[in-house]
Amino acid sequence: MARKKKTKLGKVRVAALGGIDEIGKNLYVIEYESDIIVVDCGLGFPDEEMPGVDLVIPDITYLEKNADRVRGIYITHGHEDHIGALPYVLRTLHVPVYGTRLTLGILESKLAEHKLDYKPELNCVAAGDVIAAGELTVEFIRVNHSIADACALAIKTPLGYIIHTGDFKFDLSPIDGEVMDVKRLAEIGAEGVLLLMCDSTNAERPGYTPSERTVGTSFDHIFASHTMQRIIIATFSSNVHRVQQVIDCSIRHGRKVAITGRSMLTVVGAAERLGYMDFPKGAIIDINDIKKYPDSRVTIITTGSQGEPMSALSRMAFGDHSSVTVGKNDIVVISANAIPGNEKLVGKTVNELYRCGAEVYNDTSTQIHVSGHACQEDLKFMHALTKPRYFMPIHGERRHLMEHRKLAIFMGEAPENIFVPETGKVLEIDEAGARWAGTVPSGRLLVDGTGVGDVGSVVLRDRILLSQDGLIVVSAAIDPLARDIVTPPDIYTRGFIYVKESEDLMEEMRAVSLDALERAVTDYKADISDIKNEVRDSLSKFISKRVKRRPIILPIILEV
Amino acid sequence: MARKKKTKLGKVRVAALGGIDEIGKNLYVIEYESDIIVVDCGLGFPDEEMPGVDLVIPDITYLEKNADRVRGIYITHGHEDHIGALPYVLRTLHVPVYGTRLTLGILESKLAEHKLDYKPELNCVAAGDVIAAGELTVEFIRVNHSIADACALAIKTPLGYIIHTGDFKFDLSPIDGEVMDVKRLAEIGAEGVLLLMCDSTNAERPGYTPSERTVGTSFDHIFASHTMQRIIIATFSSNVHRVQQVIDCSIRHGRKVAITGRSMLTVVGAAERLGYMDFPKGAIIDINDIKKYPDSRVTIITTGSQGEPMSALSRMAFGDHSSVTVGKNDIVVISANAIPGNEKLVGKTVNELYRCGAEVYNDTSTQIHVSGHACQEDLKFMHALTKPRYFMPIHGERRHLMEHRKLAIFMGEAPENIFVPETGKVLEIDEAGARWAGTVPSGRLLVDGTGVGDVGSVVLRDRILLSQDGLIVVSAAIDPLARDIVTPPDIYTRGFIYVKESEDLMEEMRAVSLDALERAVTDYKADISDIKNEVRDSLSKFISKRVKRRPIILPIILEV
Repeated sequence: MARKKKTKLGKVRVAALGGIDEIGKNLYVIEYESDIIVVDCGLGFPDEEMPGVDLVIPDITYLEKNADRVRGIYITHGHEDHIGALPYVLRTLHVPVYGTRLTLGILESKLAEHKLDYKPELNCVAAGDVIAAGELTVEFIRVNHSIADACALAIKTPLGYIIHTGDFKFDLSPIDGEVMDVKRLAEIGAEGVLLLMCDSTNAERPGYTPSERTVGTSFDHIFASHTMQRIIIATFSSNVHRVQQVIDCSIRHGRKVAITGRSMLTVVGAAERLGYMDFPKGAIIDINDIKKYPDSRVTIITTGSQGEPMSALSRMAFGDHSSVTVGKNDIVVISANAIPGNEKLVGKTVNELYRCGAEVYNDTSTQIHVSGHACQEDLKFMHALTKPRYFMPIHGERRHLMEHRKLAIFMGEAPENIFVPETGKVLEIDEAGARWAGTVPSGRLLVDGTGVGDVGSVVLRDRILLSQDGLIVVSAAIDPLARDIVTPPDIYTRGFIYVKESEDLMEEMRAVSLDALERAVTDYKADISDIKNEVRDSLSKFISKRVKRRPIILPIILEV
Repeated sequence: MARKKKTKLGKVRVAALGGIDEIGKNLYVIEYESDIIVVDCGLGFPDEEMPGVDLVIPDITYLEKNADRVRGIYITHGHEDHIGALPYVLRTLHVPVYGTRLTLGILESKLAEHKLDYKPELNCVAAGDVIAAGELTVEFIRVNHSIADACALAIKTPLGYIIHTGDFKFDLSPIDGEVMDVKRLAEIGAEGVLLLMCDSTNAERPGYTPSERTVGTSFDHIFASHTMQRIIIATFSSNVHRVQQVIDCSIRHGRKVAITGRSMLTVVGAAERLGYMDFPKGAIIDINDIKKYPDSRVTIITTGSQGEPMSALSRMAFGDHSSVTVGKNDIVVISANAIPGNEKLVGKTVNELYRCGAEVYNDTSTQIHVSGHACQEDLKFMHALTKPRYFMPIHGERRHLMEHRKLAIFMGEAPENIFVPETGKVLEIDEAGARWAGTVPSGRLLVDGTGVGDVGSVVLRDRILLSQDGLIVVSAAIDPLARDIVTPPDIYTRGFIYVKESEDLMEEMRAVSLDALERAVTDYKADISDIKNEVRDSLSKFISKRVKRRPIILPIILEV
């Protein structure tokens, strides 16, 4: 018996604590017996049902409870949805972090803003490195993405390899020459992949994702056909290769480059310092010096490609930027796609830029942006390379995951070997096979100001209700012993109605409240909450009938 | 002198009271001397800066003040953004309305819901009709659009023709066989067009807009490749030709059609009654009878293509529809594009449908939807046909209008003859030429519940603030004569924080308020508003420092 037990292999358990049913807050847990490794630790952005919330992070109760088993957090690349939760998670989870140089460079500046009460252990790795993690090893494998220095992970378990692709695309002509390590993926594929966990973001999109380099060609066309105008290009600050291409193109066309936008300045500074960008000393000028050059000799690189209201591009559009006034001689290139939910903000910015007289390029048909994620044909290539025994589509909304499942079936994978995850649901794999096996605690924590998790569903529901029809406060004072009204009801409203032009309605509301209060106070069985309810209900009924609205009503009845 | 005056022509004045810098609330005013004609009278939908608002209508103060000069409201077609404000506008503006049969059919059911206190004069016209309007005439000219019975208008003035295209596309194979009246447009073009006012919605899109009929072909492919499944198709209820194609396709493939969604039932009923749709008696079954047929024999047509939370499709997706339970044997076709701003709602519905097990077609690449608006090549055709002396791009955001301007310049029109409008700005044309000449009153009225115009910018600002960080009410009672606190401060919050888990913070806020109140009350110079300000400011500072949030603070200090 003892001998048999020794040769028997243990169980691999895989769960997503984030990244499923959303594009955001990626956090995957992979464990084998007593070892846990965490892949990525990202934040999510609040949707329209979370007004006032700054950001969303995954609930890591499970990791906190098993902290002694966590060997490390392995980061695939430096985007917010993969590293953004670290400043919060590292507060309670004191474990080493592994990432490539640019990834850690971005992480370090984030951590500096957050002031942890200890210095976390950050380990810099390079593509090709293999990190021991208990009975497991984690190998970093070069991939291409819309940020430099991105990696997939190959996690070697006693049961076989787990490939976690991170975010990736195949770029055969990347700006830094670092083509995805197809050879290594193919080797591991030949050795045998137990489980493929693969990016699903573009699983709905047919074809191949074009190379980042195609954007440079489009830039060249735009620069060549607008030699007399100033050119303003907005893009994601983290896409250092895109920024590099703008600089290269500007140099080719005899233009100086000025940079504006806080995150753009930070990232370009860090990327140059770390050797991810490369340009001659005089190529960059200060944004305040652009007036010294004719328009035809200036390119401005800016943040704000998502129409973010406080971004540099938005400030330019609305005439609120200290150094740049947009006018008829400006060509604005928005080198990005609107992330779902940002379409209206981007549209607003574009409209304002047009109103300033500028010409705007914001059209995918001119290929001024390419995606950083694999489209269907690239995904097929990944499946063909890795030939996984089991497959788990990750990083996507339900529709992306389900389309990816369909694609895997097209690639010949058996439906019963494909596991479309839910947050917190555990996939268990052992020698006998793979199956769903229960759940681990999971969820989301909302960050609002300095508060983490103190805003929940009740608070959000109230915020949404308040935003719909506003609020009415009814104040009064009663003498509970004499059952008498000391101060008759007064009405305060916020977000309900334009008070100055609604005096009649205000007067009627006072009368209805007084009537209800009198009724309730003289009822000797009524306690204070009965009295409040009576006032609230009467007023609510009246308002609903009178103006068909449902404001929140807050009766403040003091007992004096 | 008198003789000379007689031959001298007057002035044409053109202004938009809506429809500019937005897709919505179209309302154009065209006047010649004492005659005013109004083209369209639409509503707009509130954006994210108007929480709680139901809809937006144009401010018609100018028309009310000149009511005796208004000869009529001429409606191009029956979409909400062209007829939706009529139930409100007709309350005060008692003028005749002219529209085609389907347009009036839709309008009548809208008016029936609104109960005006008189019976407005609705005049049914047909394409080709010419209506006298004082010194002007208004001619209805057949165009194609995503609703049947749409027209452009040719307004004949003593100075020449004004062509107002309404919303249009060129469809050479329309479902009802009614091809746009290119001949008449060309005739008027040959006669001489003074001013072209032309739809700009798709001015950014290259190429031609495909025919509505191409969608039928795509439906056929989907039906042919899913013979065993139930098919659910969501589209705009007003697109009767689309609905007709679904019914025709279902009949061809041996399926019965069930209809769900209030507006879909209303429109199909009206369209059939008025002769705009045509199908054999047994083709349609009641939605409650779908269980009597196998899935392979059933098509369901539904509303909800925009992901509207209360729509039939959304209720199906979230398992809340009384007759339809979506499952693994369902093919859902969303035959529509998400209108900007609705992308997330549509995405949410699609994700839920996938979660139910359905397969979803929501991809423009399969051409299951075509636009109702002219793309660039179609617009060029319109300009080539009409050869206008002056041109005003209408119906679009700034970027659409500016792209349309660029297109007109490409067509050889002189930049100085192109007038890109602003809401309320008046274009004046006489024998000497055309120029901007002042403004007329314009603006927007927000409709919330039964209130029209009682929600303005202050109320909206408060609603947005309330939705961001919620509200805190501080209640207390003081004795103003004794300068004494009768009831110490208590704190009520809504949308601010999860109170049950924030007892410490609540206690601190009470203490800060008490402290401020004591300070203010004992200051004999302080009146009640000083006291309130002191409490508000102290608490606001404390909260901002403590949790970095800015709730609205409402001090209720009763004097007893």
